[in-house]
Parts: sequence; structure tokens; C-alpha cells
Amino acid sequence: MGILQGKKGIIFGALDENSIAWKTAMRCHEEGAEFVLTNAPVALRMGEINKLAEDTGSEVVPADATSMEDLSNLFDVAIEKFGKIDFILHSIGMSINVRKGKHYTEMNYDWLTKGWDISAVSFHKVMRTAWDKDCMNDWGSILALSYIAAQRVYPGYNDMADNKAYLESIARSFGYYWGKEKKVRVNTISQSPTATTAGQGVSGFDGFLQIADEVSPLGNATADDCADLCVMMFSDFTKRVTLQNLYNDGGYSNMGVSEGLVNKFINGLEKS
Amino acid sequence: MGILQGKKGIIFGALDENSIAWKTAMRCHEEGAEFVLTNAPVALRMGEINKLAEDTGSEVVPADATSMEDLSNLFDVAIEKFGKIDFILHSIGMSINVRKGKHYTEMNYDWLTKGWDISAVSFHKVMRTAWDKDCMNDWGSILALSYIAAQRVYPGYNDMADNKAYLESIARSFGYYWGKEKKVRVNTISQSPTATTAGQGVSGFDGFLQIADEVSPLGNATADDCADLCVMMFSDFTKRVTLQNLYNDGGYSNMGVSEGLVNKFINGLEKS
Amino acid sequence: MGILQGKKGIIFGALDENSIAWKTAMRCHEEGAEFVLTNAPVALRMGEINKLAEDTGSEVVPADATSMEDLSNLFDVAIEKFGKIDFILHSIGMSINVRKGKHYTEMNYDWLTKGWDISAVSFHKVMRTAWDKDCMNDWGSILALSYIAAQRVYPGYNDMADNKAYLESIARSFGYYWGKEKKVRVNTISQSPTATTAGQGVSGFDGFLQIADEVSPLGNATADDCADLCVMMFSDFTKRVTLQNLYNDGGYSNMGVSEGLVNKFINGLEKS
Amino acid sequence: MGILQGKKGIIFGALDENSIAWKTAMRCHEEGAEFVLTNAPVALRMGEINKLAEDTGSEVVPADATSMEDLSNLFDVAIEKFGKIDFILHSIGMSINVRKGKHYTEMNYDWLTKGWDISAVSFHKVMRTAWDKDCMNDWGSILALSYIAAQRVYPGYNDMADNKAYLESIARSFGYYWGKEKKVRVNTISQSPTATTAGQGVSGFDGFLQIADEVSPLGNATADDCADLCVMMFSDFTKRVTLQNLYNDGGYSNMGVSEGLVNKFINGLEKS
Repeated sequence: MGILQGKKGIIFGALDENSIAWKTAMRCHEEGAEFVLTNAPVALRMGEINKLAEDTGSEVVPADATSMEDLSNLFDVAIEKFGKIDFILHSIGMSINVRKGKHYTEMNYDWLTKGWDISAVSFHKVMRTAWDKDCMNDWGSILALSYIAAQRVYPGYNDMADNKAYLESIARSFGYYWGKEKKVRVNTISQSPTATTAGQGVSGFDGFLQIADEVSPLGNATADDCADLCVMMFSDFTKRVTLQNLYNDGGYSNMGVSEGLVNKFINGLEKS
Repeated sequence: MGILQGKKGIIFGALDENSIAWKTAMRCHEEGAEFVLTNAPVALRMGEINKLAEDTGSEVVPADATSMEDLSNLFDVAIEKFGKIDFILHSIGMSINVRKGKHYTEMNYDWLTKGWDISAVSFHKVMRTAWDKDCMNDWGSILALSYIAAQRVYPGYNDMADNKAYLESIARSFGYYWGKEKKVRVNTISQSPTATTAGQGVSGFDGFLQIADEVSPLGNATADDCADLCVMMFSDFTKRVTLQNLYNDGGYSNMGVSEGLVNKFINGLEKS
Repeated sequence: MGILQGKKGIIFGALDENSIAWKTAMRCHEEGAEFVLTNAPVALRMGEINKLAEDTGSEVVPADATSMEDLSNLFDVAIEKFGKIDFILHSIGMSINVRKGKHYTEMNYDWLTKGWDISAVSFHKVMRTAWDKDCMNDWGSILALSYIAAQRVYPGYNDMADNKAYLESIARSFGYYWGKEKKVRVNTISQSPTATTAGQGVSGFDGFLQIADEVSPLGNATADDCADLCVMMFSDFTKRVTLQNLYNDGGYSNMGVSEGLVNKFINGLEKS
Repeated sequence: MGILQGKKGIIFGALDENSIAWKTAMRCHEEGAEFVLTNAPVALRMGEINKLAEDTGSEVVPADATSMEDLSNLFDVAIEKFGKIDFILHSIGMSINVRKGKHYTEMNYDWLTKGWDISAVSFHKVMRTAWDKDCMNDWGSILALSYIAAQRVYPGYNDMADNKAYLESIARSFGYYWGKEKKVRVNTISQSPTATTAGQGVSGFDGFLQIADEVSPLGNATADDCADLCVMMFSDFTKRVTLQNLYNDGGYSNMGVSEGLVNKFINGLEKS
């Protein structure tokens, strides 16, 4: 019997089998949870989510996470199916400036606004929909995925860095009310750079990934590791962990340099 | 001879003589700096900025800090006057949700977007205008004012908390390019709650202010203290401090509890 | 079948049934782990550890955690019993200055040294003994208990604050080598103030506890919650989480003020 | 007229003209301060402090900063000379394990204790001596020098990392009482790796230094930059900044990676 036996949830953002949300859905299913899958209509067309739905016995409900109407409909389906729910995974992020290769110093402000709405404000909208419908069970758990660029500079990650900072702030700001009034926890997981379809769009991403893997004492956390941690954060083992940003990164966030980084850097200097 | 002798700058956000920007302008003037003053047209009408302009021998240029056109015009005036400039103070923040008393769980998303643009994105727009015009001297200094709600929850501060988190992230993201390519530093000052006209609009503000004053080993930093620190951050004494969020708060940010807080809290419990 | 099925470990610091280490031992047992229990000889005499040993089918091995000889003997017993081991819990802390009521400004430096050795250096000694004997399995997990006084000031917690800062630093410093060379993770859990026998010796402790409980969105994490989190950190669900200080505190660490704190504080002011 | 006109102080740790303390003494002198210089008797013999004393019109008083007797004598000389004093610089650090090349996993615990006493506890002893003699003026300023290894791992920095974490904790713990009862501020400066005589003893130090210089948007802060920042922190421009750890590091602490680091790392990988 799995550690999520009897838990019900909603999982946003499973695009294809490299997605963290996809792997989390698989692990949640193995641990006994039931859930609704959702993604933006355009992502649903590109992806292979029906395979995931089949494998996990889940329903797919299209929803643009910036649309309060779509979110309302999505939650109504979940409530109809499950009554109250226990967990939500927000794995959503997209920057048009990144996609179009706009440099941070030359960003298009309309695209900035759109990316901020999709990547960060959507987390408020999701929680607000759940709040208005009062559909979370006591000791429920809400999670969003973040990245250390919210704290430190990774050139090329662009406006997504600022979006992640805003996202993490929403987790704290809304998490206060969720805790006080509904006994629900809200956290973000700050994951190692991960070779998902989304991650690969970021310029210089391979460099971040390789350096992080070298510096991290345990190497980069994989999407599978992240799925395991999400399961844990949805389980009753972490009932009083809230308002936190949890690094799942092989130790990277608290490293200065590794011996290997120093050696390769000096080698790179000499050979250049 | 003051420590800003020969420095030229632009100061955003002086509304009235309680404003941090107002006091900073006065102190910059005393230390030998010259600058252009600016604020939104509506704020200029409400405020008494002409008195400040007179006292400091400064020109006032109206500019909506969300308008690239207004900012371009403002910087052109400053460049015309000074050639290159050495410092910029961004002291701008406003949330319509706060003003209208909308609870964080019930925010209006149009107002959210507008407040984010004014309070946070404007800092990107200001720096980008300066960047495009290449008008900062080497070892110049750009500052924005922030608040600890960017890191921790202060209910009632509302979407301004998320805006400040975004603002601080912009300081890091853009500050990287300013440092690498232009030898310019970018920092934020996280100031004690301060009884400015802006601060007083926040619900529960008096409570934050009194608790912070009790907890801080040196009491709350005043607007005058903040002006002093701004001067220091514009001076050559801090040339290699960049990408930082500097707490000017009497020590509050690293306090858990003070003995006085514990006593008053327990007293409040017993009497209630 | 529990999530620690087949895992072997060593648990330091179970004094009586209020101890976090005691509750962690109970939960580890329920989840299928086997372990050796240990504490200082003097603590063993005061406590009721034999009851715990019986309930969990464990052996008790006395060891002064500042003595490399005692630690060597302890690990030899565990290795004899289990072969390699998977987890270690370090729940040890004691300040003579706290016990004797010496104010932080008047500490006895011999007592300071002794408290530092017991509360912080012992963690290095424990890990070093395991290191020298090369007795940890791949993906093993080492945990120590800490407190937020390592980051912020709680008057009365005294030199224990500095000891916890040192302890957390050891976790990072040694954790690097454990990760790189042995695939073992090292973390600390920063727990809400908890009414254990040890906690109650700290002056002003009740005040910290009540304020933390008021401010935390989910209320203070209990010793039972901490035991759950320890189990999670020993399990395979958190394999790539290392070098972290994990707050198990109902959200306290990322709170500024709660509405209740403000109200009670103001009430306390008025009535005083 | 300098910004420290009329200020009196004590400066610990000027060894030779590369020392940060040496350069700070020179800058304090230029800005109008008077001070007593001190160092351990053995360091005084090795160094050239008499030249500094001459250049700044200062007296040199030998003191082992771990000896309460020596410290008492030192402060008596300063008090005799100046009456109350305004600032103290603690620039003291030494690890025998580092000097003797002992690996972190194989440290000698007697050396560990001695290094901790010299590098960290001495800061408590210095402040306690000043406290007992009640010799600090209102709004005085106490500073110690630290390094980012207190927060993140730099292999080779060894037990000095843990010592710096303890040192920074002392700054907060004692700083609370200094603020509340004496209106004195206590801070640490976390400086870029700096090619002082002390720094060069750390294994891998050149690697840290070169990587930090590459990653920092403004390049590493020099000893001269640090001296400027110390002057600022002793001046009246920073009266309400306390309990802080201030990064003077060209922005390094808030960087993830720079583009140059990524390029050189990848180049180093390919060529190796």
C-alpha cells in the first residue's frame, strides 16, 4: 500500500515523458493517489498526455492556467470526481523572451507580462480557484516547481529568473492564509537543471546543467528524484513543512566550488 | 567637501518631505551631488516637489516610470545637463489592491498587473533606458528601495510583497550585465517600515512598525538613516558592493524575538 | 511494508519519551528499520531508554559522543550487527552556560568549549568515525537536529545559537566529502521549539514556543512531526537532498508577523 | 575633513601591507580617525607593524586575542588614551589544520579547538572586554571579517568555514545586547578571496580567487575596497545597520554562473 493511498489531486504541466509532472504523476499513481491531469490546450495537442492518462487511469481536462474560467471548470471536474482534494502540482513556466532569444537587456514588455502571467501569476490563480471553491482537505499540500535562478544569476534564464522569484513569493504570501485558515501547506521545490523539453529551450542551459552536475556533491537531481520528493511532499510525512523553498539539487545550492570545477576551470583557462 | 562631490544623478519618487527619496535628495545635495528630480505627473501635482527642487537647485522632470517614452525624455534631459551620470535612486511602489483594500486572496488581476508594472517592472525600464543611452559613468551606482516582505510574510502588505521580490530579482538579473559590461553596481536597500505617506496606506502597517521597533536592537531605521545609507551607496566607499539587498533596519532582519516582544506578547495573551 | 524496510541505523540522543530521537526511533521501527540506540552514560542512567529498546527490538550502546574511543566502539557494535548502515540521527545538544544560567555576555569559556564540543564537534566526530570505518551504504542519510537560532537571535538560547551555526556548517563541510566520495547525504532539520526535556532548560523558552506557535501558519511542528520528517529523510524518497537545513516549523521561518501576533502585541502594549 | 573625524578605535590583525587591517588602518587615518593597533606578539615579530604605527601616528599594543588578560590590558591602554572608543576591527583568523595540511576528514581536534578559539571565540572575548569596561560610545561600530565559506562549501578552507559560521553567529548573538543596551552596532564583512599573507595559506585558494574573479560582475573586491567599506561601516552613514553580514565581493555571492565560467569550464572539459 502506497504512501498516497486515498489521496486525490490535480497535476498541471505533464507534457511528455521527460516532464517532471509526468514522472510525478506516474509515482503518485504507484503510491496510490488518484488525480486529474491538465495542461494548456496547445500543450495537450503537442504532447502525449493521453498515454499518461491511460497508464494512470486519469482524466485529462484542458485548461489555460491564466484563465479563471478554465481553472474554475477544471476544479469543478475534480470536485465532481473526488469531492475535496489533497494535493496540487503546479509545473508551469514559459517565457516568450526566452523562446524568441530576446536578451534580458532588450526584452519585449508585452512578452514579459505574458510570461509572468503564465509562469507566476497562474500559481495565484490556481490557489485562488481552490480557495474560492474551498475544495482542499485539511493537511492538503500544494507544490510549485522553481529554480535557483530565483536567488542567483544564471544569464540566459532571463525573465524566468524574475518570474520564479515572484512565484516563490506567492507561495509564501498565499501559503500564510492557506495555513492559518485551511491547514494546507504550500511549498516550492527548487530543482536541479533538468533536461526536460522546457529546460532545453534556455540558452546556455547545457552549461548550467554540466556545471551543476560537477559542483553538486551528489550530482544533479533527476526528474525521477523530483517525482519522489513531490510524492513525499504530498504525503503525511511532511505535514508541518510549509512556506519553504526546498532544494532538490544534489547539494548544489550550498556549494561554493568543487575541486573538479576548480580543476576544469583552470584547465580551460590554460588551454584557451 | 562632501563625499558625492562631482556626482550627478536622477532621483525618482520624492513626494513630500516624509519621503525617503526627498531626504535622500537633501543629503545628496549636502554631500555635493547634482541631480534631476522626477515623479509621476499625478504625484507631482499632489506633492511639494518644487520646494525640494529649489532647496537643492534641481530641475524637476515629470515621468511615468512605466512609460519608455517618458523615461527616454527624462534621461535626455539629464544627459543634456550632466553628460554621463553616476547614480539613480528608484523609490517607487504602489499597489491598487492595497489602496482599495482588496484582500490577497481576492485580488483584482488587472490591478495586480498595474501595480507590478509600477512597483517592479519600472525598475527594469529605468535601467534599460540608461543602458540603451549608455549614460552611466564607470563605477556608477543604481539603487532601489525594497522591504523584507520580499522574503517573509507581512499580511496586509499584499501583492507589494511579490512585487518587491520581483524588484530584487531584477536588481540581480540586470545588475549582472551592468557589472560585467559597464562597471556599474546595482543594489536594493531593504528598509525598516517607515512612516512615509506611501507606507501609511498599508493595512496593519502600524503593527509592523511597532513590532519591528521593539524587536530591532537599534530600533527602526528612519528615513534619515536611509538617506545616509543611500549617500554611502552612491559614494566611492562601496565600489564593489553589487547585486546585494542591504538591510537598513536596526538589526530586525536577523532577529528571532526580543525579550520585550516576548514580554508584551505574553502580557497581551493574559490580558486578552 | 514500511518505507524504511531493510534500512539499518544508529540513533543518538533518545532520553525519554518526549525526546525527538525517541519518537524518531519509534517511527523508524514502524517503517521497518533496525537500529542501535545510544546516549551518554549519564543520560542513560537518567532516562528510560531500556523501554524504548524493548519496544523497538534494539540494542543500547552507551557512548560519550565527544569521545572518539566510545564512538569507535559504538560503530563497531553496529557494524558487527548490521554490516554497513544506512542512517544516523544526531540529536545531541547541551550548554553548561545555559544550564547554569550564565548570561551570554558573561559566559564561562571552559563551559563554552565543553558545550561546543558536545553540541557541535560531536557531529564531526560521529561522521568521522563512520568515515574512517567506511560503514555507510551508498545513498545513506545522516541527519542532525538544529534550531533557527543558528540564523536569528533568540535571547536566552545563548551559546547554543553559536553551536547550532557551527553544527550546520559541519553538515555542509563534511557533507561535501560524503556526497562526492560515498554518495551519502548530510542534512540538518531546523525544528520548531519543542517541549522536550532538553528544550525546557532554556530561559525564555516558553515565550519562543508560544510566539512561534502564534506566528506559524500551521502552528509549531511537534516532536511527532519531526519524527515523520526524519523518516522521510532516511528513506529513498529524498536521495538527492543534501547539504540542506530543512525547516520543520509550520512555516515560521518565512514569516514576518502574523495578524495574531500584531494584535496580541498591541494588546500587551496597551494593557501594560 | 574626513568622515571619521574625531572617531577613536582599536584595529586587530594588521600583519603587513597586504593585510586588510593594514589598509583599513591607513584609510581610517586618512579619514581622521585615531586608533590603537594590536596583534599577537608572534605576529608582531614577523610583521612590519611599526612602519604602519609611524605612518598613522598610532601606538602598538601586543595582545593575544584569546587571552582575557591581554585584552584587558589592551583596552586599558586605549581607554587611557581616548576615553571611550567608537570602533573595533577584528581581522583575526588562523587554522592549524589548514596550516599543517590536515584534510577536513582527518582533522586534529586539539588544533580544531585552538583555531576556533583564535578565529571565532576571540571575537566574543574582544566584545566582552569592551562590554565589561563599558568603553564604547553610543552609535559605535564593531566589525569582524568573514568569508562566504560560512554559508557555502569551499573545499580546502577546512575548519575555517565552520569557524567563520561561528564568528558570524557571535556577531548576531552579542550584537543584540550591544544594540539594545549600548546603541552599538555589530556586523561582519564577507570579503572576496583576497591575496593576503593569511589567505595564501589555504589549499586551492588560487582557484577560489580566480573563479570568484571570473564570476563576479565587478571582479573580486580588493583589500583596498574592503578598507573603504570598513571606513563606511565605522562612519555615521550606517548608524542603523547591525547584525548583518555584508558581502563585499563584486556581486559574487548572488551569482550562479557567469557566461565566462561556463565557457572556460566547457573548454576545460573538452581539452582535458
